[in-house]
Amino acid sequence: MKELKSYLERERKIIDKGLEKYLYPAHAYPPLIHRAVRYSVFSGGKRLRPIMVIAAARACGGGGIKRAAESLLRFACGIEMIHTYSLIHDDLPALDNDRYRRGKLSCHAKYGEAIAILAGDALLTRAFHILSLLGNCGVAREVAEAIGSTGMIGGQVEDMTKSATGYAKKIEYICSRKTAFLIRVSLRGGAMIAGGSAAQIAALDRYGRDIGFAFQITDDLLDVKQDRKTSYPAVFGAENSKNKAASLIKNAKKSLDIFGDSGDILKRLADYIGTRGK
Amino acid sequence: MKELKSYLERERKIIDKGLEKYLYPAHAYPPLIHRAVRYSVFSGGKRLRPIMVIAAARACGGGGIKRAAESLLRFACGIEMIHTYSLIHDDLPALDNDRYRRGKLSCHAKYGEAIAILAGDALLTRAFHILSLLGNCGVAREVAEAIGSTGMIGGQVEDMTKSATGYAKKIEYICSRKTAFLIRVSLRGGAMIAGGSAAQIAALDRYGRDIGFAFQITDDLLDVKQDRKTSYPAVFGAENSKNKAASLIKNAKKSLDIFGDSGDILKRLADYIGTRGK
Repeated sequence: MKELKSYLERERKIIDKGLEKYLYPAHAYPPLIHRAVRYSVFSGGKRLRPIMVIAAARACGGGGIKRAAESLLRFACGIEMIHTYSLIHDDLPALDNDRYRRGKLSCHAKYGEAIAILAGDALLTRAFHILSLLGNCGVAREVAEAIGSTGMIGGQVEDMTKSATGYAKKIEYICSRKTAFLIRVSLRGGAMIAGGSAAQIAALDRYGRDIGFAFQITDDLLDVKQDRKTSYPAVFGAENSKNKAASLIKNAKKSLDIFGDSGDILKRLADYIGTRGK
Repeated sequence: MKELKSYLERERKIIDKGLEKYLYPAHAYPPLIHRAVRYSVFSGGKRLRPIMVIAAARACGGGGIKRAAESLLRFACGIEMIHTYSLIHDDLPALDNDRYRRGKLSCHAKYGEAIAILAGDALLTRAFHILSLLGNCGVAREVAEAIGSTGMIGGQVEDMTKSATGYAKKIEYICSRKTAFLIRVSLRGGAMIAGGSAAQIAALDRYGRDIGFAFQITDDLLDVKQDRKTSYPAVFGAENSKNKAASLIKNAKKSLDIFGDSGDILKRLADYIGTRGK
């Protein structure tokens, strides 16, 4: 585990350098919006999704990785910008109304609602700007589909409009859309850019689906406020949730068999997600 | 003028059919978000920007137009989705706080703030989804740049954070970013997709810059509320504003000389923008 921690730390630094490079500088005009964007992007994220982009590409291996290094970093940073945009908008008073995120003021608590709305918009737009530089419209298309109104946004809508009945059947929909779709497309995109085969991409997709669901369950187990009524723990209880997460992680790792030893890092990442908070 | 009105009406119908096709259907899951998106998109827009996409492509002429017909319609619809997203977010209580738009309830007044925020996000995402299908990453890149935090969003930020001094020098910045940038990239993109030359694209860019500025001035002259302190009329007065708009329209039309007769429709569109409300 110590080895994984130093790997994650090393990778996080590479992603942070990329974000520093691909975001507009803080002094770009008008500075207020760029300060707000950078405040949220550089406020302690673990960069798990972009780390998965690179890990998926490495698992596919081959000589393509070195040639594609810049495209991979761009794509990884675009994914983190999208993740940050979704957090900024989810935290808004009209949505989850969270004044704190990772122990710091959330974007709207620090800069006001208007700037937070526009900072989210700016990050989403900048992400597609960066993706347009990949010269691979197929990757941009998959991302747009995954995070659109039938994907990530759809999951958020369902989570918000929770009705008194039917929680249970909604939960898998919400977890997959809200969390797993972005993780899946991170892995798929990394593999596509590295020239992975269709079978490799399909295996990573299954892996992403399972760790994404497990990620949302462990997140809800860790959530001290427990205010999401549509969470797996709220409906099925903590014990069942732990068992479900463990079985998802096991399944996810099994999907990696196709990669042999090259899948080791992704297997460890799966264990890391499954054991958070233990 | 009667001829132009029927042209605009004919074109509007083509764009509306395209939007019907390229937006997710109202019954797509979850239906709430798709109803909100469609409510705002189909609430009486004149479709001026997508009409300019097609007009710019036609001005560049050549056999490319027929072959590119589907790409052009896709791009035109993507531009209208972006325009609608910007209106939905601008109308929000934290920004302009407008409960009405074109005589109907604005998106947040009808569906609530949370859904309005997400409907804007969904439209921006869907626009980039549609743009990714063009197979022309260069067009997507130009759009992302034009509407990002140094473009359209930057203009909105400046308009919001109006300080007690320095209105005059801010106004051109705000008008160009808030309004002209999207019009410029509509024209440029239409020309690029139709295979226009660099000189044609540059001419359309100058035309778009001038009609965009004129559009914002005539919009502010028509604005009964007159609550935008950073407007051209508020600083320079109505008479100067009318003269400025007329001179911009004249300049815009001059930029079209390169097109000969093929520029006629764009010239009429410029006059149409310059004479609104007269």
